[in-house]
Amino acid sequence: MGGDHGPLSTIPAAIEAVSENPLLDLVLVGDQQVIEKHLLDHHALHHPQLTIRHASQQVLMTDKPSVALRSKRDSSMRVALDLVDNKTVEACVSAGNTGALIAMSHFVLKMLNGVERPALISALPTTAGSPVFMLDLGATVNCDSDTLFQFAVMGAVMAEEVEAIHQPKVALLNMGEEEIKGSDQIKRTSLLLSECADINYIGYIEGNDIFSGKADVIVCDGFVGNVALKTCEGVAKLIIKRLEHALKNSMSAHLFGWMIKPLLKSIGTGVNPDHYNGASLIGLRGIVVKSHGNATKDAFLSAIRQACREVERQVPVKIKDRLEHVLIEKA
Amino acid sequence: MGGDHGPLSTIPAAIEAVSENPLLDLVLVGDQQVIEKHLLDHHALHHPQLTIRHASQQVLMTDKPSVALRSKRDSSMRVALDLVDNKTVEACVSAGNTGALIAMSHFVLKMLNGVERPALISALPTTAGSPVFMLDLGATVNCDSDTLFQFAVMGAVMAEEVEAIHQPKVALLNMGEEEIKGSDQIKRTSLLLSECADINYIGYIEGNDIFSGKADVIVCDGFVGNVALKTCEGVAKLIIKRLEHALKNSMSAHLFGWMIKPLLKSIGTGVNPDHYNGASLIGLRGIVVKSHGNATKDAFLSAIRQACREVERQVPVKIKDRLEHVLIEKA
Repeated sequence: MGGDHGPLSTIPAAIEAVSENPLLDLVLVGDQQVIEKHLLDHHALHHPQLTIRHASQQVLMTDKPSVALRSKRDSSMRVALDLVDNKTVEACVSAGNTGALIAMSHFVLKMLNGVERPALISALPTTAGSPVFMLDLGATVNCDSDTLFQFAVMGAVMAEEVEAIHQPKVALLNMGEEEIKGSDQIKRTSLLLSECADINYIGYIEGNDIFSGKADVIVCDGFVGNVALKTCEGVAKLIIKRLEHALKNSMSAHLFGWMIKPLLKSIGTGVNPDHYNGASLIGLRGIVVKSHGNATKDAFLSAIRQACREVERQVPVKIKDRLEHVLIEKA
Repeated sequence: MGGDHGPLSTIPAAIEAVSENPLLDLVLVGDQQVIEKHLLDHHALHHPQLTIRHASQQVLMTDKPSVALRSKRDSSMRVALDLVDNKTVEACVSAGNTGALIAMSHFVLKMLNGVERPALISALPTTAGSPVFMLDLGATVNCDSDTLFQFAVMGAVMAEEVEAIHQPKVALLNMGEEEIKGSDQIKRTSLLLSECADINYIGYIEGNDIFSGKADVIVCDGFVGNVALKTCEGVAKLIIKRLEHALKNSMSAHLFGWMIKPLLKSIGTGVNPDHYNGASLIGLRGIVVKSHGNATKDAFLSAIRQACREVERQVPVKIKDRLEHVLIEKA
């Protein structure tokens, strides 16, 4: 039910997802009448891989997380997470309110042993071609060094399992590359990572190298990650405006319109954690994928595929195993 | 002596600055022989507005701030700051090591009454046309709410005095626009600013709105500001690479080369605090302008002009007066 387009995006995406993957069963959680109407429109009302689970409420984009948690116990979001919790399903995909999804997931699914706080992680493009996994993008605001260390371990597991990157290079986002730079918790985290044989820690990285491919995993606290990536959207808008102006009276204005502007927009929104598709909420005892709010059918489909990949690779189990191993090594 | 080009940039810039401004006297601090040679090359050895002040040492870009502070007491940077301190000159402009300049400026010039920590501030471009002043861009890593509040007051004074913006709109950089978002120190700062009648506080702003013109002044801690702006450089590089690839086989590849690429580069580096020209270190009992390390003659000239503007507008005095006024109002 969530996101700007609700079932207009999610239901066609669900239909395509099951038709490309015969092993996939999807439970569509939300207003039964609305879902049935959309399925009917797509001639898929009795599709054998699609089940409807009615939920009488809906978390709105304007709902405060605390309010959603208290008063929306029969919302599509909450019911979907309950289905993950009681093992009826193996993953939840939502395009709804990010803050509410984080709070509810944390409350319903609980943290994995050894993880204190959840993190939002996303694969971002780099100039080197291979993606970089960045976390946290806004789930946890105040991170101590233990939390950042756990994020580093979780990020490495994601890079290995989801993108099959062998011994992923893990970096800490900092304001300089020298050892003396940064806050105390960054320095402590750096020390913890240097001492950990299981992590291929390459040291600090600066904002200008996020997209350079130097690192496969970049770790930062949720505040910094969120601001950094939203800033990318801002700068992409600025660049669009400047180029539009520069090319206004040029013969190539049409080229700008059909080629450059869409590309810039895709980069701008493609690196925004609210917009990038298939950001995963990790550290929990279950799989939760956050699709962006204004996801089109294709974007929501890619979030469903991301959830399938995490189910196949059993990401939460792998994270739990790795953390246990790392903690034994440390002890 | 500082920066990638040293006197090759700074001396021609100094000569042009004094020739465009008959009221300006510049003291060139550094290796006397080297400076004389460059002045001779430009037929300006005995220019009446240019004086040389010999300094036997030089802070290197690789020097740690603490080491520079202890062992480079006759460096061009240190001597220039001493000249500000003893009122021989009214401002210092440097293209040298940023960390060393912050540490030395803090040590030599001391803080203004009412200011706890220095901030690096820069005017950045917006899509609305008018610039936005953003601080701190990396001078102070851990900021409590009092420090962020002082930054807001200082930023407002800069916007008023340097850009003549009446009642500048001041915003706090946060990961959401809702009151409940963000860290405790951000929330406390927001409360302090809401209660201050002297500040036109407009609330939280997100990274995607830094360049939108919504705010005239954006306040954040030095870690977040530094990462956010360096990320802009990273994303500009990514966009250049993507566009290059997309346009490779197109008729318009030449357009990309001569028009789009330089524009993207200028935006990417133009918003990087290490590169943007005329970032000011404020909160001190003297005027210090940081030119970027790879400044060309024109870029260093613009940093000198920025220093002149701050001298004319007596920015440190205005900051001190405003802070005293605000603190009296608060009491």
